[in-house]
Amino acid sequence: MLSSQELVQFRRDLHSYPETGWCEFVTTFKVVQKLRSFGIEPKFGRQIINPEFVAGRNEKAVEAAQKAALDKGVSAEFLEQMGGYTGVLATIETGRPGPVLAVRFDMDCVDVQEALEAGHRPFDEGWASTNPGHMHSCGHDGHTTMGIGLCSWLVENKDKLCGTIKVLFQPAEEGVRGARPVAESGVLDDADYFFGNHLGFNLPTGTISPEPGLFLASTKLDAEFVGLAAHSGADPHKGKNALLAAATATLAVHGIIRPVQETTALNVGTLHAGQGRNVVAPNAFMQLEVRGETEEVNSYMREEAIRKIKASADMYDCEVKIVKAGEATEFKPDRKAIDLVYEAAIPVVGEEMIKKMDLKLGSEDCTILLRRVQQRGGVGTFIIFGCETKAGHHQRLFDFDERVLDIAVSFYKNLVPMICGFK
Amino acid sequence: MLSSQELVQFRRDLHSYPETGWCEFVTTFKVVQKLRSFGIEPKFGRQIINPEFVAGRNEKAVEAAQKAALDKGVSAEFLEQMGGYTGVLATIETGRPGPVLAVRFDMDCVDVQEALEAGHRPFDEGWASTNPGHMHSCGHDGHTTMGIGLCSWLVENKDKLCGTIKVLFQPAEEGVRGARPVAESGVLDDADYFFGNHLGFNLPTGTISPEPGLFLASTKLDAEFVGLAAHSGADPHKGKNALLAAATATLAVHGIIRPVQETTALNVGTLHAGQGRNVVAPNAFMQLEVRGETEEVNSYMREEAIRKIKASADMYDCEVKIVKAGEATEFKPDRKAIDLVYEAAIPVVGEEMIKKMDLKLGSEDCTILLRRVQQRGGVGTFIIFGCETKAGHHQRLFDFDERVLDIAVSFYKNLVPMICGFK
Amino acid sequence: MLSSQELVQFRRDLHSYPETGWCEFVTTFKVVQKLRSFGIEPKFGRQIINPEFVAGRNEKAVEAAQKAALDKGVSAEFLEQMGGYTGVLATIETGRPGPVLAVRFDMDCVDVQEALEAGHRPFDEGWASTNPGHMHSCGHDGHTTMGIGLCSWLVENKDKLCGTIKVLFQPAEEGVRGARPVAESGVLDDADYFFGNHLGFNLPTGTISPEPGLFLASTKLDAEFVGLAAHSGADPHKGKNALLAAATATLAVHGIIRPVQETTALNVGTLHAGQGRNVVAPNAFMQLEVRGETEEVNSYMREEAIRKIKASADMYDCEVKIVKAGEATEFKPDRKAIDLVYEAAIPVVGEEMIKKMDLKLGSEDCTILLRRVQQRGGVGTFIIFGCETKAGHHQRLFDFDERVLDIAVSFYKNLVPMICGFK
Amino acid sequence: MLSSQELVQFRRDLHSYPETGWCEFVTTFKVVQKLRSFGIEPKFGRQIINPEFVAGRNEKAVEAAQKAALDKGVSAEFLEQMGGYTGVLATIETGRPGPVLAVRFDMDCVDVQEALEAGHRPFDEGWASTNPGHMHSCGHDGHTTMGIGLCSWLVENKDKLCGTIKVLFQPAEEGVRGARPVAESGVLDDADYFFGNHLGFNLPTGTISPEPGLFLASTKLDAEFVGLAAHSGADPHKGKNALLAAATATLAVHGIIRPVQETTALNVGTLHAGQGRNVVAPNAFMQLEVRGETEEVNSYMREEAIRKIKASADMYDCEVKIVKAGEATEFKPDRKAIDLVYEAAIPVVGEEMIKKMDLKLGSEDCTILLRRVQQRGGVGTFIIFGCETKAGHHQRLFDFDERVLDIAVSFYKNLVPMICGFK
Repeated sequence: MLSSQELVQFRRDLHSYPETGWCEFVTTFKVVQKLRSFGIEPKFGRQIINPEFVAGRNEKAVEAAQKAALDKGVSAEFLEQMGGYTGVLATIETGRPGPVLAVRFDMDCVDVQEALEAGHRPFDEGWASTNPGHMHSCGHDGHTTMGIGLCSWLVENKDKLCGTIKVLFQPAEEGVRGARPVAESGVLDDADYFFGNHLGFNLPTGTISPEPGLFLASTKLDAEFVGLAAHSGADPHKGKNALLAAATATLAVHGIIRPVQETTALNVGTLHAGQGRNVVAPNAFMQLEVRGETEEVNSYMREEAIRKIKASADMYDCEVKIVKAGEATEFKPDRKAIDLVYEAAIPVVGEEMIKKMDLKLGSEDCTILLRRVQQRGGVGTFIIFGCETKAGHHQRLFDFDERVLDIAVSFYKNLVPMICGFK
Repeated sequence: MLSSQELVQFRRDLHSYPETGWCEFVTTFKVVQKLRSFGIEPKFGRQIINPEFVAGRNEKAVEAAQKAALDKGVSAEFLEQMGGYTGVLATIETGRPGPVLAVRFDMDCVDVQEALEAGHRPFDEGWASTNPGHMHSCGHDGHTTMGIGLCSWLVENKDKLCGTIKVLFQPAEEGVRGARPVAESGVLDDADYFFGNHLGFNLPTGTISPEPGLFLASTKLDAEFVGLAAHSGADPHKGKNALLAAATATLAVHGIIRPVQETTALNVGTLHAGQGRNVVAPNAFMQLEVRGETEEVNSYMREEAIRKIKASADMYDCEVKIVKAGEATEFKPDRKAIDLVYEAAIPVVGEEMIKKMDLKLGSEDCTILLRRVQQRGGVGTFIIFGCETKAGHHQRLFDFDERVLDIAVSFYKNLVPMICGFK
Repeated sequence: MLSSQELVQFRRDLHSYPETGWCEFVTTFKVVQKLRSFGIEPKFGRQIINPEFVAGRNEKAVEAAQKAALDKGVSAEFLEQMGGYTGVLATIETGRPGPVLAVRFDMDCVDVQEALEAGHRPFDEGWASTNPGHMHSCGHDGHTTMGIGLCSWLVENKDKLCGTIKVLFQPAEEGVRGARPVAESGVLDDADYFFGNHLGFNLPTGTISPEPGLFLASTKLDAEFVGLAAHSGADPHKGKNALLAAATATLAVHGIIRPVQETTALNVGTLHAGQGRNVVAPNAFMQLEVRGETEEVNSYMREEAIRKIKASADMYDCEVKIVKAGEATEFKPDRKAIDLVYEAAIPVVGEEMIKKMDLKLGSEDCTILLRRVQQRGGVGTFIIFGCETKAGHHQRLFDFDERVLDIAVSFYKNLVPMICGFK
Repeated sequence: MLSSQELVQFRRDLHSYPETGWCEFVTTFKVVQKLRSFGIEPKFGRQIINPEFVAGRNEKAVEAAQKAALDKGVSAEFLEQMGGYTGVLATIETGRPGPVLAVRFDMDCVDVQEALEAGHRPFDEGWASTNPGHMHSCGHDGHTTMGIGLCSWLVENKDKLCGTIKVLFQPAEEGVRGARPVAESGVLDDADYFFGNHLGFNLPTGTISPEPGLFLASTKLDAEFVGLAAHSGADPHKGKNALLAAATATLAVHGIIRPVQETTALNVGTLHAGQGRNVVAPNAFMQLEVRGETEEVNSYMREEAIRKIKASADMYDCEVKIVKAGEATEFKPDRKAIDLVYEAAIPVVGEEMIKKMDLKLGSEDCTILLRRVQQRGGVGTFIIFGCETKAGHHQRLFDFDERVLDIAVSFYKNLVPMICGFK
């Protein structure tokens, strides 16, 4: 089993080359290599992704990432085996009948430029991001490392276990894009138990939260308006103004009438439109998201957003194409799974370090995997591993207390035998 | 033939009881009585109106005006003969073959409260409006009087004339509502020559303008939005917000992309919406208008307005009913008619008092009648009789120099024989 | 003490002549008369209202209501004593030292036309509203009756009590207008205990809820925009368009960025603007409200609304006057008071009929009175008396199960001695 | 004097390396070299530009253009002499007293990618643009060539002339940016006569229009909004949404109330805002323009646009910086100058090929230079040299009939002696 030092080293290696969602070619390669070093032959890439459900994938970025992967030493053969997709699933078969337990870790980074300045530990110590504009500022490098740590333990201890343990390294969690195509690949359909986790969240190192609160269901949408250019000083009325359509849509989406009794959120985050100052803008592209406390409320928000975008396009005689770019569902953990977490956590951190949280924000596509498992009779939940951070999630100065790596692995060392123990 | 004094007296009588468009029951009665006193039996009301094309008619106001007319001494029998509609057509048949000449005067007032204060002549002399909220502040009382003066002369001089002279007293010019249903009744379809006129327009008394410039084609629209009420503190998202739809429509209409090379205008003039502060507004009613230098440009403006109103309703899942409440077309006078006006005007006011104007504003539904006549081979134009006014048109202190009445009648005394002279 | 039948009779009398907020002249008169019949001489009108804090008062409606009161037999002298204001405070002094207990009932109606149709009991039995456009469709007639019932009991039982009991009949609860000026009059400043209540709320008759959940803090605002008229077909750019300013404000207010973690609500409920189709609208009037789970969040919403309204006026070079038309604060009941309610309710309805509710909607200006009492060291809460209704609150078919009157009085008969019992 | 063939060759050379406004380093170099070959030592760059009035200059593009100029063989020394600015002024002093005549030609290209496809003559013949994204698709390569042709004739004929002839090669006409800083440098302040010209405009080759009609005064504006980022799923209300501010401004600018009687135009052409889907957008940048038939109307439009942009920023508590990025004024030619053009044109193309036009669109910053000359007592106008084009101005398939080069030079050969003839 990997030592604390080895875990830290692996995490820092990941940190030094972060990759954005759907572009985790080098990361996938590193995980597969490491698993193979343990004697595990995992599934990866296209084998665990249903392409039909892939959303929010930038083909140009994917292509560039593949080229960069070649430069970083990933073989063309391996890339071909990936089939253009990232992510890894390690399956540890004990050979004994028993339940299927799945644990999910995510592996993508955020599109933020890491602080390359003195005082920021990754920079000072030489393991800051070398991929400009990309940074592991959400801690997924830590998550992936926890998964590797867990696998190293599983391999050495599978004699004492029964059933099957699946360790998923999921791509593209940011933007809640990766879970759906993994779910739809069916690779977790036999899971009886399912757990996901996140580190940080303003809890001190050493705390574990078996009940984080509420994640919001969410839908991410891209809207592309197509109008018609015209000279604004000569015959602007012959154009179709996509910028006005998009500006109208932006305001209308922000004016959606909100339910009073349920939590909701929305944002039009980006808008890019137009070709020149004196040209009626024939093009506009906007990225937005809606969220809701329940799937039902999120659907209301999504359908209202779509209604308003379409009407805005009609208003200016433009065409509009609306594409889903990501999704998460509401978080409905099972009591049975929560109780297991409590039980497994106490020996690791002590009762007083176990915190029930009351989050009511953010979204996690782990909810999509959990729902899939639940729909087939399984149970599961989501765990927060508290740890101090140097700055908030997604900030350029983010760094986390690496002691959390050991804590998480220890937790899973307790949890796994509770489910797949061989008696 | 009526003397100057008699003309002034008739005008002031009209002024003291002004009636708004489609409500000119008393005015119609007075005109018919006066014509009968000349021995003319005119057509009136339903006989000269095609109800299918009536727009912008407030049924409640019409009903109230009919009741008021009974109080003012109009007989129930006469009201019944009117068939619910106002307006008069006096036809003077000379009995001799010759052209058909039609002249149009309008008879409705404006929805303005006349100044009832010292210094305002109609008030000082006791002939100010006795119909609250209504005032002849556009001079149509003068126009009607000119028509009466012309008829009094025609009756006495028809031996020297040939052909037919039709004098139209048109209802509901304000809001450009009355011309279309008169045109569609067909009563002017045989006209070879057609003239309309207006007094005032910032020209000194004694001037005549045979070429006023440009009137804008225009469409008046009413839009009624229907949504669904809901309690805004409990479940606002169950409502359908007609106020938001109408506010969106208002801004969108005002944002219509305007042609650069043609004159246009638009206005959302009124908006009334909602039932209470804490109720999602289920209702909204807006009145708007568009204008354009040509019929084509006006149509563009109208269709864009309709597109935007409909899309706004869709945006909030509301229904909307859009109704045409009035219309005027572009002004295309005939050179032949203009030349006749020049010729007839010179002896009346002298060459130096004849002014070519360059108006590029306002709308006149006389254009609808002119177009009808032109479509059947006739010619025509529109004349401005300059006269000083105490305040701008539609103002509460409006009053005009009554010498214009004689000038206009004298002009027509010159014009008629040039067309229908018996040689 | 009044019998059940007498209570019902009093309630139906109130129901037959409902009066809107700040107009409860007849209602005040009836309450005072009844109290005097018990031997109580209450304070009323101007004596319990601080006019400086009166909001949302329509002076024309108040004047008309006073005239109608004269017609209904209220003496001119009594009206003069009221000083233009409504509301009653009955103070029962026991003459023995002890705590001050205050209970509040509201007395105004809703601006809804009652269903005057067969099948609606008040109509069938002849006690439906005779005040057109006004209806006790929220049950305040019941509340006032409960207060009268309580007073009738207090008078007969004050020998067994100590301290002081104040029974407040508050005007203008709808629109959350009346509480603030009563609070600011200081008449409840010595209260040690304070209770308010409401009937209905979808709970069965016989239930009592000592913990209703959340009422939202709320601010009601009126915004009046003043622009400048201009002729839309001639020189619209010389006007200042108040309708566009108000439409912009409407959409901007509905687009206020909402906190994710706290409950909020908002509504622009009415908008009336403009003078005519072809006039640039120089006037616009809008009524709106914001709400928030806490006073802090409500303040955020209010300040954002004000910012957006002011910027909208600036955008069109208009003036705007924003006036507060009502307010409620967040609901922060005291555990001590809640416990007393539990204790007093059990003997009346039995433990199984006591329901903790989780409302998260609506606003109650009773919160303003409660806050005032708490700021001076008192405690209090708000109670729901469940009762079946024929239609939702504020609906034209609303009617309630009158058994609730007895239940409420019985409850207070238990509660009062727990606080002011003379031992 | 240059032959037709030499003119064509020079034009094609310019065409093959087009440079956008403020970036005409290679073009300036070519013009200076050519003038030097005639024996003229012109002023250029910083010598004829007042930097204080430079607008719409992209410093990054200027830097890149200077680097590219070095690659194209422009010496570092020459670049240094330019002082960072482009444009050339050739002054031909006759040595004899007489009037100062100035003629202006523009030299920048449009930001359009030229069609690199068979059938497009410049491509087929190998002189299409080699500067990607840039193209002489407005004919300024032709204008510059005309100026060179004129200079070559002046040098050879200055013995027959008196006074001074100034030939200006103006940078940055597109976006109406270059005229103001040239005007403010004062180099044309002594001009008694001033002429500018444009080729094309849908007139056949061989026509000359001494009276093109109306150019619109125009102001170009950039608006940069600065807000504050926040996480849209956690605490969006802590952000300041620059995207909503800019969308509001876009719609409000398009809703500016337009005068009815004067021609106006406006356009928000581009909008770029936001950093990510789930981030409250802290940034927005928009480019817009307004136009008006007169300087007064254009000022109204500009001030209204600024008012609306500022109010939109206030509405969302954002900062906004509004910068002027270009300007043109109304076109007020002098009768004396127009008559000279008629007189000079007739011998060149014949009376029947001289066309009075009635344009009412577009803007030309030549109006800024003309106004400067007029303010100091000079006269001038603007001439259209008709010529067939393969596609509309600013289109990727634009090409023009090169015979217009000779026609223009011939015209000036007639015009110059009419003003500066040595008698």
